[in-house]
Amino acid sequence: MSKEITSRASDYSQWYNDLVIKGSLADYSAVRGCMVIKPYGYALWENMRDVLDRMFKETGHQNAYFPLFVPKSLFEAEEKNAEGFAKECAVVTHYRLKSDPDHKGKLIVDPEARLEEELVVRPTSEAIIWNTYKGWIQSYRDLPLLINQWANVVRWEMRTRLFLRTAEFLWQEGHTAHATSQEAQQETLQMLKVYATFVEEYMALPVIRGVKSESERFAGAVDTYCIEALMQDGKALQAGTSHFLGQNFAKAFDVKFSDRDNKLDYVWATSWGVSTRLIGALVMAHSDDEGLVLPPRIAPLQVVIIPIYKGAEKKDLLDARARDLASRLKTAGVRVKFDDNDNARPGWKFAEYELKGVPLRLAMGLRDLENNTAELARRDTREKTNVSMEGLVERIVQLLEEIQQNMFNKALIFRDEHISRADTWSDFERLLDEKTGFISAHWDGTAQTEEAIKEKTKATIRCIPLDNVPEQGACILTGKPSSQRVLFARAY
Amino acid sequence: MSKEITSRASDYSQWYNDLVIKGSLADYSAVRGCMVIKPYGYALWENMRDVLDRMFKETGHQNAYFPLFVPKSLFEAEEKNAEGFAKECAVVTHYRLKSDPDHKGKLIVDPEARLEEELVVRPTSEAIIWNTYKGWIQSYRDLPLLINQWANVVRWEMRTRLFLRTAEFLWQEGHTAHATSQEAQQETLQMLKVYATFVEEYMALPVIRGVKSESERFAGAVDTYCIEALMQDGKALQAGTSHFLGQNFAKAFDVKFSDRDNKLDYVWATSWGVSTRLIGALVMAHSDDEGLVLPPRIAPLQVVIIPIYKGAEKKDLLDARARDLASRLKTAGVRVKFDDNDNARPGWKFAEYELKGVPLRLAMGLRDLENNTAELARRDTREKTNVSMEGLVERIVQLLEEIQQNMFNKALIFRDEHISRADTWSDFERLLDEKTGFISAHWDGTAQTEEAIKEKTKATIRCIPLDNVPEQGACILTGKPSSQRVLFARAY
Repeated sequence: MSKEITSRASDYSQWYNDLVIKGSLADYSAVRGCMVIKPYGYALWENMRDVLDRMFKETGHQNAYFPLFVPKSLFEAEEKNAEGFAKECAVVTHYRLKSDPDHKGKLIVDPEARLEEELVVRPTSEAIIWNTYKGWIQSYRDLPLLINQWANVVRWEMRTRLFLRTAEFLWQEGHTAHATSQEAQQETLQMLKVYATFVEEYMALPVIRGVKSESERFAGAVDTYCIEALMQDGKALQAGTSHFLGQNFAKAFDVKFSDRDNKLDYVWATSWGVSTRLIGALVMAHSDDEGLVLPPRIAPLQVVIIPIYKGAEKKDLLDARARDLASRLKTAGVRVKFDDNDNARPGWKFAEYELKGVPLRLAMGLRDLENNTAELARRDTREKTNVSMEGLVERIVQLLEEIQQNMFNKALIFRDEHISRADTWSDFERLLDEKTGFISAHWDGTAQTEEAIKEKTKATIRCIPLDNVPEQGACILTGKPSSQRVLFARAY
Repeated sequence: MSKEITSRASDYSQWYNDLVIKGSLADYSAVRGCMVIKPYGYALWENMRDVLDRMFKETGHQNAYFPLFVPKSLFEAEEKNAEGFAKECAVVTHYRLKSDPDHKGKLIVDPEARLEEELVVRPTSEAIIWNTYKGWIQSYRDLPLLINQWANVVRWEMRTRLFLRTAEFLWQEGHTAHATSQEAQQETLQMLKVYATFVEEYMALPVIRGVKSESERFAGAVDTYCIEALMQDGKALQAGTSHFLGQNFAKAFDVKFSDRDNKLDYVWATSWGVSTRLIGALVMAHSDDEGLVLPPRIAPLQVVIIPIYKGAEKKDLLDARARDLASRLKTAGVRVKFDDNDNARPGWKFAEYELKGVPLRLAMGLRDLENNTAELARRDTREKTNVSMEGLVERIVQLLEEIQQNMFNKALIFRDEHISRADTWSDFERLLDEKTGFISAHWDGTAQTEEAIKEKTKATIRCIPLDNVPEQGACILTGKPSSQRVLFARAY
């Protein structure tokens, strides 16, 4: 096999990079911190996007598109939001290049083409969108306004990692406006549920639904809800967030509506987003030392058929059978490829599709031709079975669902085994270092203690789970009284 | 009717803006030259995108995503391309904002966060993509490389118009790499054909396929092929381009491959794109003084059902029948809406859906309930018919196709009536001013003459039609010998 993958045990971080690059999901680019999403990775994103898009539309949302640029004066309007993102903004200051008089064939920024007002490349679109909503909302009849946008955003991060943290990334951002606080809060929770459903049912990744502590909140939000997933190295990953924005943006952009009694009030808002970061979570949660393991429901390719033959003997018959099966699988809605490339040997192909995480591999040789059989290999368990061609299409359809379920169960067991309770500081530190995963512990509720814990251990409060049971206790660090446990973890 | 539309006769340009804004396709934004694409306009774009995306995939292309930013040094590499776009580049120079020490709550660009190398916001992606392809292509086995990208691009235009010319726009850009010149040229023509098919069959807009003169070529191309459409005011609009790039970008980015005989050669390239500009063409070509007229195949909404009732009498029965019809239409694949909004009167709704260009309107009142009928109104011809509910679903499905065809035929007749031949300069000028449309005339083949004609008349060479018949003649301006006619027009 030509493409060596670092093992998880020897270097987890390098293993991840190997999978992303050698598994053909993405590539580094010439632009610092920006990646190229390769066709295979983009096909995966398209499948994820299509499911999410359908779920958004089913819950009454429409797509729209707002400008890439935010004039600085608008960006400033909601102060906390501006403060939160100011340090990572790419800024357009000029609108023209010109020939460099000193170097033939080179260009320089034309100093005469300086913009009167600088433009921020959107790190998130609340500002430009709420400035637009001001013109769209006058009365309660214009509400709710339920809009989503699929777009690229830019956050100038100092340390970047493919998919997990890139300067530019693709995402969707929902921005809704409501007549009442209650309705906006319901929307916030509804979208959290949509995200949780998507990640669990399509990405086969169990998540904890919770609310963020104040210091982990989205800049400008009243409350940030999140779904948190667990990676195989025991670190948590925030997989999606849904924000209740209160009237903060409506006040910053002066968006008022007249209610049924003709009374003017500020509009209530939410925003929510998931990004290509989810692909990083998918890779880290399910893959193994042989390569990617992709859940069937979103895998670009669900089944690959590989013919095994020597010379030309009966090759026609083998091809015909494979093509017939592929065609019947397609009809049944399965994403299938018959790899009849003569330039690569079966062994190379086996390794390649294993690396790419294709859920099912079917190999067919001359003996199979005689016996009316094929060899079926599952990517998740790496089990091989000899199967009859009779009823094979139905069997494959069923098996794909089984793999989906099995991947979820495996991740769920791993996740549940990695939620520990700590009641003393030494337990807390030991569990974090040795067992890793989520640690459920009491916290006195202050940002100061949260920060101190983070400095000592690098662990942050991932969330206060929505299904938390109130419990009296003493803060793990300060011993001060606490009314509930929260979930800590080291995180991506 | 609350939304007044300027008529075409009184102010064509204002009529267009009225349709775009009042028809809910797009809105102006706070960013100079950038627009907001509203949900209705975006739904139209999604339909167009989905069809094109399917056609690209059927011709073997895959989607990928490349960075928004192009480092200046890469941007410069292909000189003609750089020179062509330098004047309209938005440039990122800094990566951070900070608090303004002199104005509380305001931000300034942090002078210490200047980028070592400026980043150009992509006006087109040849540079960043060919720099990436260098790492992907080594051998003839890596070819052809057939990739498409859906993305936003920025061209800092001085005069902007909604959809037709905006600083930021959405588009797709295909970038392919081939082992031979011939194969690349075939790809260029294949994609031109895909565009022509899409615009004619889905947008109901006939196009002329042709090749650009040298001065109208894409910067960096060897040949630019185009499809040209005609608007109702007799001006042409370039609806899509497909470029044969030769080895220009391969040489600029040093992309070589070893062929079957292990000989190294530069790769051959194409690029091709269409953008949200197509929506502008759609609006201008088909609409009338009452509003938009959208072709059924891409209309966000194909049928609207409007109930007509007084008080609550038999409203339940009416609603039940409308819902049943809507549900049967949906099952038949029709995009239908039953507008049961009580806050708006039928007359207002009629005008609103007419403005939005919904191809078919069904009105159902109490008498229809008795007679088992409905009133069917076509948007394209504005004909109204009383129809029986019997077999109505089939009739509607058929009628939608009829409308699609009728819109194309109408546009084709208009276009063909507006192709004139001119053999003298005075005819040329008179036809341009009085008849408008395309003028087929002899041209001596020089850029100088082309420029002189443009200065005198504002008409440009739209293309040399692919099906041109060679013909000896004298240049319309200089009288010098010419071997073929070319198509002139004033254009968007």
